[in-house]
Amino acid sequence: MKTIKGFPAESNGNYQLNVISLIKHAVRNFSRQEIVSRNLDGNLFRYSYRDSYERMQQLANSLESIGVKIGDRVGVLAWNTYQHFEIYYGLPGIGAVMVSMNMRLAKQDLAYVVNHSGASFIIVDEDLIQIAETIAPLCKKVKAYIIITDKNINEIETKLSPIYSYEDLLSKASPKYEWPNLDENSAYAACYTTGTTGKPKGVYYSHRNTYIQAMMFAAQFSMNVNDVVFQMVPMFHVLGWSKPQAATYVGAKLVFSGRWSLDDLEELTSIMVQERVSVSGAVPAVFMTMLEFIRKMEQKPDLTGARLICGGSEPPIALMRGFRDETGGEIIHSYGSTEAMAITTLNILKPWLEEELSEVELWNLKKKQGTIVSGLDIIIVDENGIELPQDGNSSGEILLRGPWITRSYYNAPETKESFTEDGYFKTGDAGSLDSEGYLKITDRIKDVIKSGGEWISSIDMENSLISHPGVLEAAVVGIPHPKWDERPLALVVLREEFKSVSKEEIHKHLSNKFSKWQLPDEILFVDTIPRTSVGKLNKKTIRMEYCDIYTKK
Amino acid sequence: MKTIKGFPAESNGNYQLNVISLIKHAVRNFSRQEIVSRNLDGNLFRYSYRDSYERMQQLANSLESIGVKIGDRVGVLAWNTYQHFEIYYGLPGIGAVMVSMNMRLAKQDLAYVVNHSGASFIIVDEDLIQIAETIAPLCKKVKAYIIITDKNINEIETKLSPIYSYEDLLSKASPKYEWPNLDENSAYAACYTTGTTGKPKGVYYSHRNTYIQAMMFAAQFSMNVNDVVFQMVPMFHVLGWSKPQAATYVGAKLVFSGRWSLDDLEELTSIMVQERVSVSGAVPAVFMTMLEFIRKMEQKPDLTGARLICGGSEPPIALMRGFRDETGGEIIHSYGSTEAMAITTLNILKPWLEEELSEVELWNLKKKQGTIVSGLDIIIVDENGIELPQDGNSSGEILLRGPWITRSYYNAPETKESFTEDGYFKTGDAGSLDSEGYLKITDRIKDVIKSGGEWISSIDMENSLISHPGVLEAAVVGIPHPKWDERPLALVVLREEFKSVSKEEIHKHLSNKFSKWQLPDEILFVDTIPRTSVGKLNKKTIRMEYCDIYTKK
Repeated sequence: MKTIKGFPAESNGNYQLNVISLIKHAVRNFSRQEIVSRNLDGNLFRYSYRDSYERMQQLANSLESIGVKIGDRVGVLAWNTYQHFEIYYGLPGIGAVMVSMNMRLAKQDLAYVVNHSGASFIIVDEDLIQIAETIAPLCKKVKAYIIITDKNINEIETKLSPIYSYEDLLSKASPKYEWPNLDENSAYAACYTTGTTGKPKGVYYSHRNTYIQAMMFAAQFSMNVNDVVFQMVPMFHVLGWSKPQAATYVGAKLVFSGRWSLDDLEELTSIMVQERVSVSGAVPAVFMTMLEFIRKMEQKPDLTGARLICGGSEPPIALMRGFRDETGGEIIHSYGSTEAMAITTLNILKPWLEEELSEVELWNLKKKQGTIVSGLDIIIVDENGIELPQDGNSSGEILLRGPWITRSYYNAPETKESFTEDGYFKTGDAGSLDSEGYLKITDRIKDVIKSGGEWISSIDMENSLISHPGVLEAAVVGIPHPKWDERPLALVVLREEFKSVSKEEIHKHLSNKFSKWQLPDEILFVDTIPRTSVGKLNKKTIRMEYCDIYTKK
Repeated sequence: MKTIKGFPAESNGNYQLNVISLIKHAVRNFSRQEIVSRNLDGNLFRYSYRDSYERMQQLANSLESIGVKIGDRVGVLAWNTYQHFEIYYGLPGIGAVMVSMNMRLAKQDLAYVVNHSGASFIIVDEDLIQIAETIAPLCKKVKAYIIITDKNINEIETKLSPIYSYEDLLSKASPKYEWPNLDENSAYAACYTTGTTGKPKGVYYSHRNTYIQAMMFAAQFSMNVNDVVFQMVPMFHVLGWSKPQAATYVGAKLVFSGRWSLDDLEELTSIMVQERVSVSGAVPAVFMTMLEFIRKMEQKPDLTGARLICGGSEPPIALMRGFRDETGGEIIHSYGSTEAMAITTLNILKPWLEEELSEVELWNLKKKQGTIVSGLDIIIVDENGIELPQDGNSSGEILLRGPWITRSYYNAPETKESFTEDGYFKTGDAGSLDSEGYLKITDRIKDVIKSGGEWISSIDMENSLISHPGVLEAAVVGIPHPKWDERPLALVVLREEFKSVSKEEIHKHLSNKFSKWQLPDEILFVDTIPRTSVGKLNKKTIRMEYCDIYTKK
């Protein structure tokens, strides 16, 4: 896109959108606002924005004192804690880049992230030292490790060297720091996306990207100082889906979940109720488990007005409805990716649709990915890159462009084909846009099943499978077929109490939504379904494992 | 401020924040959203964002067809109508600059604005033709006038020449237009500030300024698609205080007030109720008159949840309280200026203050200008430019800096002293910031009264005077005094039914808040108080008129 210069405005075009502005603002106006953080022992640590900001400045001075310079990349391997929040500002505020390290990556991939980014320091939570130790021999350019621990540094047993104590450094540093006026296009943080093929790909978010997205998030979720934001999404996943930044923008109370797994959701649900959380986000499986716990509570929590952002995959109606009925809270479906900074659509109803549609139609609408958020360009294109109409039917690849959408991966020329010449990111997802602007994802481009020249949506079929009461998990992939090119294969995990469900019954269930030719030739009942490190169905693995199921017969 | 470059981010730093993005977004997602506009005959015109966007594109094609080019300046002399909204996008969208023309300026000043901006075309409402005719002989560089009228252009009697009909042009133009990808630092619009001295000074807002402010406004007022925004503030005043743009950002319903004066407020109040307005803005005098009308209504309107932004001067507690008690609506005090794009502070309460403060304390807090909005830098400095502490007591000049704050006036090198070297705008207002970040304006720097080396706040005294039940209007100025350098003089307009109030009674009333030495030596009961074209107290005129009142005796 050629940029055209108009009449010059004498205004402050050169005032840089720097993430440090967000925290400076929060401290000036909301210094007493509370920040809560769940410790490893389950206790809640509490302090204020003012306290936090002092420690951010101590961190900034500390990092400079051990040699971190403007432009340096620093790896961060940490849970959702108040220290991680301090790092969100104190580290990029000095002009360094926060490289988020996903602890669930395979050792080689995590080492690749560190080496590819050129990280020279790594900040690591004490109980993640083991992961750092595993990759340390592969990461020769790392100069030192900073351990987040309450212990005396001498008590830490580790092969990592040299090491510093985060707390020791801070305690020796001044709580006053003069932040540089960073160019807004300087990198604020890097996240690496795993995908299902190839090496992790680096997405570097600028201060400007991050700042504008925080504003958008606050605006689109009508956030203000009365909100309580529960940070459950790992902060190494796409900057925690922008919630820490948006909370800072409006001075909202922040609650950090600490280290947690699905087993801790009863405790996290209690915290949600106790701290009166009004904004949070998670994948459907997390909210589903929370809902099951809430169903058992004698006194139902009142989450009226709460906006619970549900991403990663489509939330079932039963989940959205259950939350509303049990708590008054609203599950809001959102769609995004690492390249698009997590939030690109939101499913928010419009007053006229609430008047016109029946309840069933409204729930079905709420399952869609929602309307694109303000500020982004979206187009749906066919195989030749030709834009398709916004008619609710035409389905093609979703392309995104905007102030925070990646236009290239860092230092990875081989990935050029993921972007168009006019600056769009090719999401690899297929979908349609209706006349009201609601996006409906129909499939991952590479997961679409093409049988006899006709398309079958594996995602629709998975959703249909999951709507059967006996089905806990399901995956549908296309497998090479001698006659029809590809035919669907379904993997199904049955619930304990439904182990007797038959293939015939599943076929019958699917027949409600699918033509006979679309039904999967094989349905395999399995104990687990392979998933990627971020919990997505690993269709690549499934396809490889069962590649000859329709040919060997 | 020196800008420091960090590690380059590969993201879309070059995606330009262009105001056209706002309307494109609104139309993609909210095409059916309603826009209402009050005609001159009092009827309400209704159409949709989709309809409006088609006409914006027709306008863009029309302007190009008559020779408007990228970078050209075009004057706009119009009321709050749907056509003015179309101009807000269709004119700057082609890369031209919308020069807002304040119809209340003196002829010479308005002609100065046209000539100083170099406007080559003027768009004018039919019933404002007379004003355009008055200045036309002074504006030789204007090539043509575009008349907004429903009439056939031949029926328009005017000395303006050549003329086009807005509607004729649109009817012949294509409703499809390819918007250029404008550099975000291109000027979007210009407003000229009148002040009390000198020639009007031009503030040129870039697309970026306007875009970021729209996002801020939407976020800070928690606006969304369910909101109904009533545009009463003239759209030639600081871009209508950003409401049309913020409404577009979230796809809110818009209601334009048309041509109106204080006499029409009964009708406007009815529209507010009928259209279920939830966001609006005005100066205190407007809301005061509305409240008086509401008080007389048998069935009180329910404005629960409405945010009524009150700027220009401090709203009395009685006004804020009255609106809350009668309607449930909240008057929110805001502070700004043309140079600061109207919205720089907002008085929004914090949950902990609502717990800690008594009702009286909360109402007093609500009278303050509020906390600075996210994204701006504010400092309070003494006479030597030294920053004062945020302690609620230290009072000095308020300096502002940020993504939408002007850093210089257009083509006016003599005004350089209004800005600091590090990019701050010197507001000319004096105030203090408390530990919670609330700004309290204590005076206009040049209106502060210095008596015997001690300060007297004329604004505090005016507020105290107005709190007397018999006082309708009041102004306090400093007048040269042989002994004390300056002494206060009060001008007071009494309400009809309180004409018997004496000087002694006013003195006694003021004594509740002021020391004896601070009381004005003279209190003059007058019929009217001089005001500027935008309704501010014209203290320059008052001081001149009474300059010798304390010396001639």
